[in-house]
Amino acid sequence: MSWTITPAHIDGLARGAAVLGTGGGGDPYIGALLARQALTSGDVTVVGLDEVPDDALVLFVAMMGAPTVMVEKLPSLAEVIEPVKALSVHLGRPVTHIACAEVGGVNSTIPIAAAAALGLPLVDADGMGRAFPELQMVLPTLYGVTASPLAFSDEKGNTGVLQTADNSWTERIARVACVEMGCSVMISGFSMSGSAARESLVAGSLSRCIEIGQRIATAREEKSDPVDAVVRLLGGRELFDGKVVDVHRATTTGFARGRARIDGDADRSLTLQFQNEHLVAEADGTVLATTPDLIMVLDGESGEPITTEGLRYGQRVRVIAAPADERWHSDAALAMVGPGYFGYDMAAHRFDGSISTGTVSAGATA
Amino acid sequence: MSWTITPAHIDGLARGAAVLGTGGGGDPYIGALLARQALTSGDVTVVGLDEVPDDALVLFVAMMGAPTVMVEKLPSLAEVIEPVKALSVHLGRPVTHIACAEVGGVNSTIPIAAAAALGLPLVDADGMGRAFPELQMVLPTLYGVTASPLAFSDEKGNTGVLQTADNSWTERIARVACVEMGCSVMISGFSMSGSAARESLVAGSLSRCIEIGQRIATAREEKSDPVDAVVRLLGGRELFDGKVVDVHRATTTGFARGRARIDGDADRSLTLQFQNEHLVAEADGTVLATTPDLIMVLDGESGEPITTEGLRYGQRVRVIAAPADERWHSDAALAMVGPGYFGYDMAAHRFDGSISTGTVSAGATA
Repeated sequence: MSWTITPAHIDGLARGAAVLGTGGGGDPYIGALLARQALTSGDVTVVGLDEVPDDALVLFVAMMGAPTVMVEKLPSLAEVIEPVKALSVHLGRPVTHIACAEVGGVNSTIPIAAAAALGLPLVDADGMGRAFPELQMVLPTLYGVTASPLAFSDEKGNTGVLQTADNSWTERIARVACVEMGCSVMISGFSMSGSAARESLVAGSLSRCIEIGQRIATAREEKSDPVDAVVRLLGGRELFDGKVVDVHRATTTGFARGRARIDGDADRSLTLQFQNEHLVAEADGTVLATTPDLIMVLDGESGEPITTEGLRYGQRVRVIAAPADERWHSDAALAMVGPGYFGYDMAAHRFDGSISTGTVSAGATA
Repeated sequence: MSWTITPAHIDGLARGAAVLGTGGGGDPYIGALLARQALTSGDVTVVGLDEVPDDALVLFVAMMGAPTVMVEKLPSLAEVIEPVKALSVHLGRPVTHIACAEVGGVNSTIPIAAAAALGLPLVDADGMGRAFPELQMVLPTLYGVTASPLAFSDEKGNTGVLQTADNSWTERIARVACVEMGCSVMISGFSMSGSAARESLVAGSLSRCIEIGQRIATAREEKSDPVDAVVRLLGGRELFDGKVVDVHRATTTGFARGRARIDGDADRSLTLQFQNEHLVAEADGTVLATTPDLIMVLDGESGEPITTEGLRYGQRVRVIAAPADERWHSDAALAMVGPGYFGYDMAAHRFDGSISTGTVSAGATA
C-alpha cells in the first residue's frame, strides 16, 4: 500500500530512525531539517516493497562519512541528487525508485530529500534494519548485489563513479575519497531490480521508524515511560540505567571511533564501544550485547535517542538492546559485521543473552 | 610526418625518456619491457602534433603512483587500456589519439603499449617536456584543459571515473584512491581536441627521447663522453661530478620523497632533493638549479640515467641541468611547479644561474 510522506511525519521518523540507527546514521535534527526543506518542493510517495515492479531500477542514496563531520556540513539538495544523476547517466537508463541503505537520523531522511527533488517514489525498506559504519555492510551484499557502480559527490563540485572488484573495495576506495573530500560525501549505488530489492531489503523500515517516533511522543504525552515503550515495540530489553561518566572519541580514517563508560547503582558500570554505531555493551566484565544486534542509548526520561557523537559527560541514559534482522546472524553476515570484524575478540552475543550460532541461511551468493 | 615505432626504437627511447624524466617517470627497464611486449601485437604509428585533426579526441595515458612501487608491480596490457575504455564509454565517443602526459622511463612507454593494444596512433608530444610528481602539473592545465573526466584502474579489477572541480582536486582524489589501491594505478584523462593538443603540448618529445638515447649509444661506441653528448644536445650544463654518499628515501602519501648527498673533489658536496623527480640541486650552500628546470643524474661513465629510486651509496654520478620548456617559467606555472609549491623556501633558479622572473605568458586561462 502506498502512502505519502508529509512534513508532519518527519520529526517522528527522524527520531525513530535515530533509535534504530544504534548511535550512528547521523543526527536526527540535521536529517529532519533536510527532509522538511525537500518536501516543500513536492510530496514523496512511499511504496511497499511488494509494489515495486520486477524491472524497477532501485538505488540507495546515503551520506557517507564521519557523523562528527556531518553535523557541521549540511548538504544542499543539489548535492544530494548529484550522485543519482551521475549514476543514471552511467547506467544509461532512468532510475525508478529510491531506497534507504540504512536506518539512521540522516540516512533515513536523505533519501526522502532525494526522492522529493527527483520526483521519484521511495521504497518503504532499507538495506540493514539498523545502521552500520561501512558501505558493504548491507544485506544486499549477502545476496550478490554489487555496490558498483557507485557514485559519490561533494559540495565542491567533485563527483566520482566507481566500478570495483567487490563491495569491500567500493568501501575502501570511496572511504579514502570521502576522507580527502572532507569526511562527508553523498553516495548512490547498489542499483538493483525490484525482485532483487524484494529479496534482500528489510521491509517496512520507514513505517517502523514513524511508529517508534509516535510511541515515544505518545508516552511523553501520557506521562508513561518512553524507553519502555520502545523496548516493548522492538521486542528488546533494557540493559542498563546510569550516568555517562567518560567518553573517548576520535575521528580517524573517516570514522568516529570510541568508547563510553556509564555508571549505575551499586558500583555497577557499563562500557559501550562504538565505530559510528554502538557495537559492544559490557557490564562488569560480562558481554551483554554485541553487533549485529541493536544497542541503543536513550535519554533516561524523554526516550530521546542519543547518537555516539552526542554522548556527553553527565547524561542520564538508559541502554537498551533489540534483535537485528535474523539474516545478520548467518555465518556470512557475522564475518562481515560480527564483533571479530571490528577487532573485538568475542563471539556475537545476542541481546537475549545467548551466543549467535551463525547458522541462518542468508542468500544464495554469500 | 608520421613514422612507425618498432621494437628497435624502444631501448633508446626508454633511456632518453629516463634522462628527461629527471629521476622520475619510472624505471626505463620496466617501461621498455612493457612497450616491447605490446609491439608484438602490432606496430604503432606516431604522428606529429601538426598532423592531429582539429576534431580529434586525444587522451593522456599514464601510470600514477610511487616509482618505488611501480618497479614491483608491472601492469598487464589489459590494465593499461582499462581506463581508456572506461573513459571512452563515459565520453560517449571513440578516442582517436593517445598522448604522453610526461616524459619518463615508464610514462613515455606505457602510452606506446596503450596505442598498440588499442590500435590507435600515438602523438609525438607530451604534456610537460619532463616529468613532475602530480597529475595537474601539465602544460594543458595552464591552457584550461580539464583533467576530468579522469579514469583510473588497478590490476584487481577496480576502476573509477572522476569529474572534479579543478585539476588539483583530480590529483587529490585520484592520489588517495591510488594509495589505497596499492600505490600504483593506470590513469587516462585530459581529453582534448586536436587544436587544444597543438596549443598546449610539448612537440616532438618521443623523437627527442630517441635522439638522446641514440647519442648516448653512439658516444659509448665511439668511446667519447655520453654525459657531455647529452648536455650538448639539451643545451644544458654539468653541475657536479661525484660519488653518492647518502640517500634518504621514504614512500609517503603516494610519493617517493627524499634527498641524496653527492661528494666531489676538494670537499665539495652537492645535495639533491626529490619528490619522485629531482627538484633542487644545491652545492655548498648555493642553489645551482631548481624545478621547473631539468635536473638529471647520470652514471658518470656510461651516461645511463639514474632514477631517484635507483640512487645508491657509492655510485659515481654526474649531475646535469637543462632548460625546461619556457612556458614552465610563467607566473601561473611557477605557482604550480616552482620550488615554493614543493615546500622549498627559495626562488626558481634557472640552470644557467639566473633567477626565474615568472613573466612568460603561458596560455589564456592560467
